[in-house]
Amino acid sequence: MNQHTIKRFEDELNELKDKVLAMGGLVEKATKRSMNSLIKQDAKRAHKVIERDHAINAMEIEIDEMSRTILALRQPAASDLRFVMTTIKVVTDLERMGDLAENIAENMLKTEEHPLTQVSSLQSLADLVLDQLKEALDAFAKGDMAEAMICIESDNKVHAKYKSMQREYLTYMMEDPRQITAGLIASDIARSLERIGDHAVNIAEMVVYMVKGHEVRHVDHDTAAALIGGELQDKT
Amino acid sequence: MNQHTIKRFEDELNELKDKVLAMGGLVEKATKRSMNSLIKQDAKRAHKVIERDHAINAMEIEIDEMSRTILALRQPAASDLRFVMTTIKVVTDLERMGDLAENIAENMLKTEEHPLTQVSSLQSLADLVLDQLKEALDAFAKGDMAEAMICIESDNKVHAKYKSMQREYLTYMMEDPRQITAGLIASDIARSLERIGDHAVNIAEMVVYMVKGHEVRHVDHDTAAALIGGELQDKT
Repeated sequence: MNQHTIKRFEDELNELKDKVLAMGGLVEKATKRSMNSLIKQDAKRAHKVIERDHAINAMEIEIDEMSRTILALRQPAASDLRFVMTTIKVVTDLERMGDLAENIAENMLKTEEHPLTQVSSLQSLADLVLDQLKEALDAFAKGDMAEAMICIESDNKVHAKYKSMQREYLTYMMEDPRQITAGLIASDIARSLERIGDHAVNIAEMVVYMVKGHEVRHVDHDTAAALIGGELQDKT
Repeated sequence: MNQHTIKRFEDELNELKDKVLAMGGLVEKATKRSMNSLIKQDAKRAHKVIERDHAINAMEIEIDEMSRTILALRQPAASDLRFVMTTIKVVTDLERMGDLAENIAENMLKTEEHPLTQVSSLQSLADLVLDQLKEALDAFAKGDMAEAMICIESDNKVHAKYKSMQREYLTYMMEDPRQITAGLIASDIARSLERIGDHAVNIAEMVVYMVKGHEVRHVDHDTAAALIGGELQDKT
């Protein structure tokens, strides 16, 4: 490649990254808005999340198309190739997160008929997974493994909170069967939030692969930390 | 590329396809086995599904690695590139389906304490989504769009059945609050099955993209049928 082509290739990779981050921004917004609609009992916001999911879907296809073009025309190697492969995986996670935010919005609409008695624990679960999403996107933007590990390590905390909330909903439904529908709605929202956190962890794991070429998918989080521990210590 | 290189490249693409189909076979087996463990109340089979999920996870990483190597060394273009990109997406769906089969097995273990009163509707939902998985894998194996469309079109039927089952579980829990835990278990198994069907549809949509270069992701199924209708009519 000559200097001009190299410059154009770098520009394309940066544009690809910017698109992924923009898509991540839309997902973040959809998740926040769906939770706000729930907290403020504002059906209009919930409808907005549902209407706008198509924009997230469209970005997935646009980014996949751009990745394909880069693979076809630039034939990237080494870390550039890992970056493009990571992008192809990451947009799948982001698209699914958009669906989950939409699911929260749809559940919000059901709460008009079946009000939830308390939503503060859902909000605090949402805060945790929104932090994870932010960490995952930051890690992707900067190729920052330390940030990726923060996201991955939060997973245990999120999962424990989710499990305890599910137990709470069960008790609540058993004590007052009239609350079964509300309990199921709350339980489904909690599950969607937990899944959003899972997808953030997937993204963070792909970032580790992108930066180091190490696979940390499907290993437990302590092993993952040990695997990439050396590099993290170098940075601190 | 000389003849020798072309031959080796073709062999590699075939090997990649075989690996995806083998992974699909493991997912099919895990799903069937988890349902059998439930029907026959055989905890041993459920444990086997849980223990063997790592083999599915390992195949995802192996196939991604092979895809990356092919992209780096062979720099495929046109339909070969679409095939490799499809593979990268498809293994993500298969891996997730393996997790869902594991989730069914974990729920089966809970039924020892909370027996489900009837599992026949779960079995018939499982039969539908196992058909979808088979259709999706066949479509991928043969690049067969007609088969892919059969899978995609089943989605409405699966979704309607799933919704009606969820309504049934709700009624059941409301009538007898002692059955809430059993109802939640049945509901969670039904959801895992429905999600397995969703992932089969994702695979079928990627097959359409692989064969024709058309995107049918995120369009409704009637539009998808219309989009690729011409090609299907040519075949019949």
